[in-house]
Amino acid sequence: MNERVVIGVDYGTLSGRAVVVSVETGAELGTAVFDYPHGVVEQRLPSGVPLGDSWALQVPEDWRRVLRETVPAALRDAGVRPDQVIGIGTDFTACTVLPALADGTPLCELDDLADRPHAYPKLWKHHAAQGQADRVNALAAERGEPWLARYGGKISSEWQFAKALQVFEEDPDAFARADRWIEAADWIIWQLTGHESRNLCAAGYKGVYQDGYPSAEYLDALAPGFSALLGKLDHPLSRAGERAGGLSAEGAALTGLPEGIAVAIGNVDAHVTAAAARAVDPGQMLMVMGTSTCHVMNSAVLGEVPGMCGVVRDGIVPGLWGYEAGQSGVGDIFAWYLSCGLPPGYVEEARERGLSGHELLTEKAAAQAVGAHGLVALDWHNGNRSILVDHDLSGVLIGTTLATRPEDVYRALLEATAFGTRTIIDAFERAGVPVTELVVAGGLLRSPFLMQLYADITCRPLSTLDSPQGPALGSAIHAAVAAGAHPDLRTASTAMGKIRRNAYLPDPARADAYDPLYALYTELHDHFGPPNGPLHRLRAIRNAAR
Amino acid sequence: MNERVVIGVDYGTLSGRAVVVSVETGAELGTAVFDYPHGVVEQRLPSGVPLGDSWALQVPEDWRRVLRETVPAALRDAGVRPDQVIGIGTDFTACTVLPALADGTPLCELDDLADRPHAYPKLWKHHAAQGQADRVNALAAERGEPWLARYGGKISSEWQFAKALQVFEEDPDAFARADRWIEAADWIIWQLTGHESRNLCAAGYKGVYQDGYPSAEYLDALAPGFSALLGKLDHPLSRAGERAGGLSAEGAALTGLPEGIAVAIGNVDAHVTAAAARAVDPGQMLMVMGTSTCHVMNSAVLGEVPGMCGVVRDGIVPGLWGYEAGQSGVGDIFAWYLSCGLPPGYVEEARERGLSGHELLTEKAAAQAVGAHGLVALDWHNGNRSILVDHDLSGVLIGTTLATRPEDVYRALLEATAFGTRTIIDAFERAGVPVTELVVAGGLLRSPFLMQLYADITCRPLSTLDSPQGPALGSAIHAAVAAGAHPDLRTASTAMGKIRRNAYLPDPARADAYDPLYALYTELHDHFGPPNGPLHRLRAIRNAAR
Repeated sequence: MNERVVIGVDYGTLSGRAVVVSVETGAELGTAVFDYPHGVVEQRLPSGVPLGDSWALQVPEDWRRVLRETVPAALRDAGVRPDQVIGIGTDFTACTVLPALADGTPLCELDDLADRPHAYPKLWKHHAAQGQADRVNALAAERGEPWLARYGGKISSEWQFAKALQVFEEDPDAFARADRWIEAADWIIWQLTGHESRNLCAAGYKGVYQDGYPSAEYLDALAPGFSALLGKLDHPLSRAGERAGGLSAEGAALTGLPEGIAVAIGNVDAHVTAAAARAVDPGQMLMVMGTSTCHVMNSAVLGEVPGMCGVVRDGIVPGLWGYEAGQSGVGDIFAWYLSCGLPPGYVEEARERGLSGHELLTEKAAAQAVGAHGLVALDWHNGNRSILVDHDLSGVLIGTTLATRPEDVYRALLEATAFGTRTIIDAFERAGVPVTELVVAGGLLRSPFLMQLYADITCRPLSTLDSPQGPALGSAIHAAVAAGAHPDLRTASTAMGKIRRNAYLPDPARADAYDPLYALYTELHDHFGPPNGPLHRLRAIRNAAR
Repeated sequence: MNERVVIGVDYGTLSGRAVVVSVETGAELGTAVFDYPHGVVEQRLPSGVPLGDSWALQVPEDWRRVLRETVPAALRDAGVRPDQVIGIGTDFTACTVLPALADGTPLCELDDLADRPHAYPKLWKHHAAQGQADRVNALAAERGEPWLARYGGKISSEWQFAKALQVFEEDPDAFARADRWIEAADWIIWQLTGHESRNLCAAGYKGVYQDGYPSAEYLDALAPGFSALLGKLDHPLSRAGERAGGLSAEGAALTGLPEGIAVAIGNVDAHVTAAAARAVDPGQMLMVMGTSTCHVMNSAVLGEVPGMCGVVRDGIVPGLWGYEAGQSGVGDIFAWYLSCGLPPGYVEEARERGLSGHELLTEKAAAQAVGAHGLVALDWHNGNRSILVDHDLSGVLIGTTLATRPEDVYRALLEATAFGTRTIIDAFERAGVPVTELVVAGGLLRSPFLMQLYADITCRPLSTLDSPQGPALGSAIHAAVAAGAHPDLRTASTAMGKIRRNAYLPDPARADAYDPLYALYTELHDHFGPPNGPLHRLRAIRNAAR
């Protein structure tokens, strides 16, 4: 009854979720979810102002409401009193970033800026700054900027500098009025502690911070005056598990928690999940598999991996190099295929048997031998993050015949994403960074067939997070460290994290059978991947036609 | 009431159809259809004997029943008396070929051979003789056989020699017992006249006859003893529109027609359609568009077109070089795509509005600008007949994104088949054989959107057969010539054929917009087409897995 607990709050793309966790055992005692009232703002601002193609914004008040709604509800669900809570931790999508005043007020909350698209937070999947990203990369390569190799040779349009440059160029007034340019992961901590703090993880992976940001000379060469951004970023950076401060009176009012309890430094969703899944040792590649996949891994080795999202010293846990890579479409691709329809007989069968479309297609696809469907696909329907870092790529499917069935295509798409993972693993190993085990978190681990397929195709043992909560549990573990309940993240992860070790082992025969299909995948990858390849010319035709 | 009529009978893949036609005007007075009771025999013989992969047989009695059922029914439908009929003509799928005794009895009708797969007629789409076809081609190329260039450099596994070689090697006894090896097109005439006749068209296009069959030396080099086939083929060949003989007493009993009326020499379905569509002048490329497309064209010029199915002097109409080419999957590909399902909302909309899936997708696809879907496909789901002559190829689709809709893929598949046609046209023109106009017959001319798309993509005026009957009308025209009612095929075609000239004209802006997409199609064609390309390696993996 007097068990000490921590609260983890996970900010996803469409909702926020709080979980109440035992400090000693990691037992998850209660949870609550709140859907953002504005969701993802893609077509027009709440006031009706239309947005351009590929925009994705959010509304900060939705994030405050997550705290107000979910923390008390999760406590009620757990049957736990607020005075048992010793700390709170959060994690956020990234790079989700916003312009703010010196006191933390988001620019979009100022009356005269509520109609200005660039005053709003840009969600991670805002893709309208590709032109800026291309210039960021071209100039960095031209000047030989030393940080470029730490990001696999390319910066994403999703990240801080491309997004900020878009604001600077398209709405210079909004840029000028922003005192601060801050990750949502840090902004939410500001709401809890009453003062600014910044986390090394987001700064390192999304903010191009490597013992310092890119130089003023570089930024001004990109666009004269753009170096003013550095002043809006400048702040000490804190490591994962550190204490950002005590819960402020306002934070206490917002959450119903006791004033003064520990608030952990902000963090990124995928990275806190490593602690939840006990995937904090070198060579354990954590894959958070959902609509997309984020790979994070610690290593004692510093390597320059082509197309990785980033490598940051102390980026995930202190004392190791933390790597991140990603696949920009995974579950999204499977869902897209299903959205195109199923034969009437399949729809009927799924209804009669109470199966989802995914379950039915998986069952039908599972029976066949490796390679029997005669298909190979490229999993680039949402572009390619690692290892090509190219959002303008698109999907490919070869080998279809008049006898090709939906379950064949579906399986080929599942396999394509696993080949994409193997491509990333191979890039790490070629760069001298060993990958010894996969640890899977996220919604897709619900599919045993998919998990086995990843074990077979990557030829590695696959462990799984043994909890329905990934990031929220990870945030709670960080809160426990910030509250001093455990001495460090690795200890806390061992005590509170949950893993089913070696849940799937590769089948040697299937692993061998996949090798020639992977060779074909690689051949397609290398044929269609280059910047002057057919997919880019096709995209140019499409863009001109639209 | 005493109007003179002719009857045309068209033998398709699944049914036979008779039509009663006015000799003077070509008016179609009545029709009747009969579905083959055994359809296509693909899995097992009527007696239960299982067949191998890619087999496709038929049952000759089904063909006799077509005459018995449809001729009287069509006359009744027309309100025409048998004594008004002055001639009958037929056309058949080709190469559909069977072993028979000297009196025309099919081997499969002998009691002791009814369980022997190789005793049955092999339907045009029997694809189990690919290994034999490969050897036919390799040896012909090695020996420099003069006829090879007349077939685009490659003989199809669908044709007479590959199929006969399969019988010779896999069932030598059945081969030995066959006195005759005869096209179904000629066998059905035998049932009507009581004596053997053979048509130049099938012999030329499917039988590799070019002023003679391949030499005994060549055939024995292929397989010692195989030259025995020549004796089973030997017979004078007759041209289109000639009289095979008078209707025999047995033929009269079978059809209810007067004994002694003219029976036209046998013919091939696509080729007789040229007369029906008045596409008998040089440069008019008739495209019979259905599940697959067959292209036939007359020319004053002899050219060696890579991948054409064949060029035969007098092959379509006397006095000109008759060319044939083909696309092995067209309507079949569209149907396959629909068979994979539609989103529930689409199914609902189609039902509410009384549209077929094809109509709904066409309507949704039609609105967008050329290239706006961002996709290019290769139409090889059933292999590629012209210009690659390779049944082991398969389909490709590139450019898919998470926003790709079913109508986008559907349109890309429509376009792919039109690009395939343009590839064939370009091959003709590069070989010095002009193609000036497309004339379309077959089921697909019901789609105005598809027709316009072909006009735009090929940049040529497109005329259409103006009759619901294609080949059956053509056979009736041939019957009228055989009966002496018209002096020759071109005169008869002018009097009795039906064309909507320039029904579709290319739109210059759309034609221009398609050029870069066609360039991408050609690039994919050349990348994926070669024999050592990725599609072949993928097929080898598939075949091994199965």
